[in-house]
Amino acid sequence: MRAHLHGEQYGLSAQMVEMTRLVGSAIARATTALLEADLDLSQTVIAADEQIDALHLELEEQALIMLSQQRPLSTDLRTIVTSLRMGTDLERMGDLARHVAKLARMRYPNPAVPLELRPMILRMGQIAEGMVAKTGSVIATRDLRLATELETDDDDMDALHRDVFAALLDRSWQGSVETAVDVTLCGRYYERFADHAVSVAHRVIFLVTGERSRPDHDPTLQV
Amino acid sequence: MRAHLHGEQYGLSAQMVEMTRLVGSAIARATTALLEADLDLSQTVIAADEQIDALHLELEEQALIMLSQQRPLSTDLRTIVTSLRMGTDLERMGDLARHVAKLARMRYPNPAVPLELRPMILRMGQIAEGMVAKTGSVIATRDLRLATELETDDDDMDALHRDVFAALLDRSWQGSVETAVDVTLCGRYYERFADHAVSVAHRVIFLVTGERSRPDHDPTLQV
Repeated sequence: MRAHLHGEQYGLSAQMVEMTRLVGSAIARATTALLEADLDLSQTVIAADEQIDALHLELEEQALIMLSQQRPLSTDLRTIVTSLRMGTDLERMGDLARHVAKLARMRYPNPAVPLELRPMILRMGQIAEGMVAKTGSVIATRDLRLATELETDDDDMDALHRDVFAALLDRSWQGSVETAVDVTLCGRYYERFADHAVSVAHRVIFLVTGERSRPDHDPTLQV
Repeated sequence: MRAHLHGEQYGLSAQMVEMTRLVGSAIARATTALLEADLDLSQTVIAADEQIDALHLELEEQALIMLSQQRPLSTDLRTIVTSLRMGTDLERMGDLARHVAKLARMRYPNPAVPLELRPMILRMGQIAEGMVAKTGSVIATRDLRLATELETDDDDMDALHRDVFAALLDRSWQGSVETAVDVTLCGRYYERFADHAVSVAHRVIFLVTGERSRPDHDPTLQV
């Protein structure tokens, strides 16, 4: 029975790792769609979010079945409940990738991000992509060093987010209000994406050490 | 034992209702702080978010204790797991109120919202405040009619959110990029606040009917 339960917990982990793979593909394509004004690519991201949502639903149902049929205790219980929460974070990361893709679609055939801000947004996209890949590894291996690295990545993301605001608010910036709105939104999406990756890392740290990290921080407005 | 469990579930509900009360107070004060550029008021919202976070942590711990000590089945299990999720929504609503307050603080002594956009933002704040009060009632009473009303309120919020974008992007609008950034962010905060209220409503509907509503929708970019 215990061995059976552990097998099923492994199943939950595998499902979450698969979610990170899909989310990673989504955010990578969304960033390219955004920067290249690629309508078809943006559509693929928007359509693929359903798959992520479906996996999330499966994960939830599987976890609830495990809770009710196996009546797990202590560590097992904590693992299953925490998986439910991590699933929610991953599902939300998928939504945020979809939002980036929608921004690309909305402004097509124009690029939503002007030339001078592209390097920053590209870097945000790369960090996001790296973070979700790392999140998958953290779920699979429970490597705490890697989990801690995600906090450093998030600091890099926050710094870039501040840089984006600074660029928008620089007196020499000549862009339109529309561009300012678009860039503000997509900056926010990437920054929240990173926060959810850190949230998953904190949950894994909690599972391994029993210690709660700081709650989801969201230091957006340190402009 | 069952009666005991039901008593404790009532305790979870009461804690969530208390969270809605604190979140309601926070969003009301945050809106006033934002529109009146009231620094002291914004500080009270930022400080009070710790209380909401603490209540959320208590709720989580209580739910985990119930899961492990009482080993609930079927409906009871679903109620406890769903409470965990509702708690996360409410905690996030508190964060969003704090973000609105931080925006007010960041621009002090200037108002972050220009005169011509104040009526729309005020209305968003009022809808948000009404929604969280209704959310408390839905949790306490499981009134499905009220839960459905929250969807209509959310439609109103989304419409206002679109109006805000339309106002910013109107060619005749004379505001600065800084204002566009600020208003984009606070519009997004109110809109997400409403989404989380709807998410709680859907979870209550799920508890009562066993039916899942549409997943968290987030139709932000229907500008």
